[in-house]
Amino acid sequence: MNFLEKRILKDGGIKAGGILMADAFLNHQMDVALLERIGAEFVSRFAGLNVTKILTIETSGVGVAYPVARTLGVPLVVARKAPSVKLSGEVYTAEIMDFTGQTIDQVIVAKKYLSENDHVLIIDDILANGYTLQGLISIVDSADAVVEGLGIAIEKGFQEGGYRIRNLGYRLESIAIIDAMDDATGTITFRQQ
Amino acid sequence: MNFLEKRILKDGGIKAGGILMADAFLNHQMDVALLERIGAEFVSRFAGLNVTKILTIETSGVGVAYPVARTLGVPLVVARKAPSVKLSGEVYTAEIMDFTGQTIDQVIVAKKYLSENDHVLIIDDILANGYTLQGLISIVDSADAVVEGLGIAIEKGFQEGGYRIRNLGYRLESIAIIDAMDDATGTITFRQQ
Repeated sequence: MNFLEKRILKDGGIKAGGILMADAFLNHQMDVALLERIGAEFVSRFAGLNVTKILTIETSGVGVAYPVARTLGVPLVVARKAPSVKLSGEVYTAEIMDFTGQTIDQVIVAKKYLSENDHVLIIDDILANGYTLQGLISIVDSADAVVEGLGIAIEKGFQEGGYRIRNLGYRLESIAIIDAMDDATGTITFRQQ
Repeated sequence: MNFLEKRILKDGGIKAGGILMADAFLNHQMDVALLERIGAEFVSRFAGLNVTKILTIETSGVGVAYPVARTLGVPLVVARKAPSVKLSGEVYTAEIMDFTGQTIDQVIVAKKYLSENDHVLIIDDILANGYTLQGLISIVDSADAVVEGLGIAIEKGFQEGGYRIRNLGYRLESIAIIDAMDDATGTITFRQQ
């Protein structure tokens, strides 16, 4: 087991309906030392790529993306969810379903922060059905920029997001992949990587 | 002029209605090297305090708070705005008016992440009318924890937030204080500190 899998077992939780609680260390309360380690792991896995921008999405993506942007010395672009956003000028937008599969959210990035010259590494904290990542990929495509790879802290491997993104030919690296969770017994099974 | 004031003049903008645009470096696109410098400035100004938690609020607060939490080696608690939030268990809540003075937002922190033993440094990116900071102070009070200080990157000194918070006896440090902005001429006047 790697450091993140150990931490999920120690401080994570499972709620009925396949909801993973990582609020003790990943999003509501951030353990910055852990985020630094996650960031270093992304930098190591994506070493040698020509990355000009990190792209993540509010809110919890910022914690895992920050150390990657710092180490690579590139700007961190934070996609916003409407209607939280008051951006001036032209924007790229993508529509994504939320995890219930019903509500449509709009994801927005100002056009001036992504261009056809950009090579983008997309970083986020949790991957489930992949709707959010597909929205971010669509925004990079709209800018005629290149997606160099996608880095995720925790992938819920029992949902279809990871399969779908890899199937599209993208390089997706997840530090911990959960293949099964049982909220009755509290058991979490990780994929061997 | 300090490094942040220079950057505001270089890359900031003013929109009609007293709206400062800092999206090129502070929130929508984050210049992580700048955020590191802002964080180091907070660490220096609040040196010697016994801080056990950093408290900020989603989304843009995370960027300025992250390097402070890393350097001090303490957890970073990110207050959430309802209804973005799916927290389990009991929560502290505070109601805050938004900048229009009309809509009421609810700010939420899970009770397990703030206790009476905590000494809290509140960090955020922009201070205007102070409603958000007052909500965060109210949450720390609800936990019977201590507010050690408040650190802000950019204070709009021509609005009443900074005056109000200092008047309550809190130690508030803002790296750049804007005393006047003129969207017709594009002029920004900083307070001498």
